Amino acid sequence: MPRYRITVEYDGTDFVGWQRQENGPSIQAALETAIEALSGEAVVLHGAGRTDTGVHALGQVAHFELAKDFPPDTVRDALNFHLGGAPIAVLDAARADPDFHARFSARRRVYLYRILERRAPPALDRHRVWQVPTRLDAEAMHAAAQCLVGRHDFSSFRASRCQADSPVKTLDAVRVTRAGDEINVTVQARSFLHNQVRIMVGTLKQVGEGRWRAEDVATALAACDRTAAGPTAPPYGLYLVEVGY
Amino acid sequence: MPRYRITVEYDGTDFVGWQRQENGPSIQAALETAIEALSGEAVVLHGAGRTDTGVHALGQVAHFELAKDFPPDTVRDALNFHLGGAPIAVLDAARADPDFHARFSARRRVYLYRILERRAPPALDRHRVWQVPTRLDAEAMHAAAQCLVGRHDFSSFRASRCQADSPVKTLDAVRVTRAGDEINVTVQARSFLHNQVRIMVGTLKQVGEGRWRAEDVATALAACDRTAAGPTAPPYGLYLVEVGY
Repeated sequence: MPRYRITVEYDGTDFVGWQRQENGPSIQAALETAIEALSGEAVVLHGAGRTDTGVHALGQVAHFELAKDFPPDTVRDALNFHLGGAPIAVLDAARADPDFHARFSARRRVYLYRILERRAPPALDRHRVWQVPTRLDAEAMHAAAQCLVGRHDFSSFRASRCQADSPVKTLDAVRVTRAGDEINVTVQARSFLHNQVRIMVGTLKQVGEGRWRAEDVATALAACDRTAAGPTAPPYGLYLVEVGY
Repeated sequence: MPRYRITVEYDGTDFVGWQRQENGPSIQAALETAIEALSGEAVVLHGAGRTDTGVHALGQVAHFELAKDFPPDTVRDALNFHLGGAPIAVLDAARADPDFHARFSARRRVYLYRILERRAPPALDRHRVWQVPTRLDAEAMHAAAQCLVGRHDFSSFRASRCQADSPVKTLDAVRVTRAGDEINVTVQARSFLHNQVRIMVGTLKQVGEGRWRAEDVATALAACDRTAAGPTAPPYGLYLVEVGY
């Protein structure tokens, strides 16, 4: 059976998240419906990252199989047509090897978190950034974040409902940069725990505000206790940027 | 009476445009309602640019007068509060001289038009860009656009319902640049005719597609006839970026 790999952009605002759920529309279900409209086949779509409600993607990757062989460009254009104006776009479709798995073959996931630092709420970037009215020290946030790089028990940065077998993950990189009144936190790892990025961002914001020192982040990490870290940043500032294989 | 000048960002998607109208919600009316909620005074708000339905602003400027004297920061924060989640944000509020007029004192208006060049529709930038599936030659568009700079009769680039007294305007600058799969057209003038920017962009797109040569733009300008220019680009790619005084 031909296997297809698609790269997907979406606005997560009006979805319950990537994964199909009983309680509302999901990105996965919208795409599966579009695939069935194209092919007449009911498929299961496997995504690289199970983004939560409100979380966006610039480059989510997913795979599925069809009995019938379609040219990849036809798959891309037909899925976009059948998505019918939903805020989901298939950027690319390609044939994939039979052993390619969007989730399990992934070697690198890159997330971006956007913070808008200003008094006024976002109008054009509503539901797309975390607006904070206070001045943040991006350099202090970047410096403090570096203690998180490497292989650690990230229990302090893990949602209680996280289903991962182990709290040990290897964070490859974290970078905090400023562009005008926007602060961008970019993180890269093979995989993340549930809410790990958002708890890291919520913790680093404490540093940016001057309420925490860099050592406090290291102490929170060492505690292996969710209550030791900062609050969970809201979902709408988070973007799954890229999945590498 | 204290006069206030405000700088406003908005997502024009769900509005009939800047100007108060009978047939739907306008930015002007939403702001006037917020000003009345703050002050108890019914005011008329004067905007620098009367953007059409679907057109956005990063830096619209408007002024109004109140009998009561409020600190400018209070005006900004209170208006944002009373806007109650509408996609309109007051970025700045300041006291203005009694002879300041947002529309008539303006010496420079800068607009940006965003074109997204790709096959897939925009998901995150839905209603924010004009998506075109064909490759555009941005350099050719830039070169062709230069014949529009200067003082001209812009009748060919004027909506039939335009209410300006004269079709003669001075275009100070037009710049077409590419950033990845996005093409940005930036234009600057003291003032514009109705739909002038959108007709210019629709015409330059013909050049970008290779269907028109640069000389054809000059010929269209010289014709002083709306039917000689290209189609009107859609409103949702257009942003009022800045108003200078």
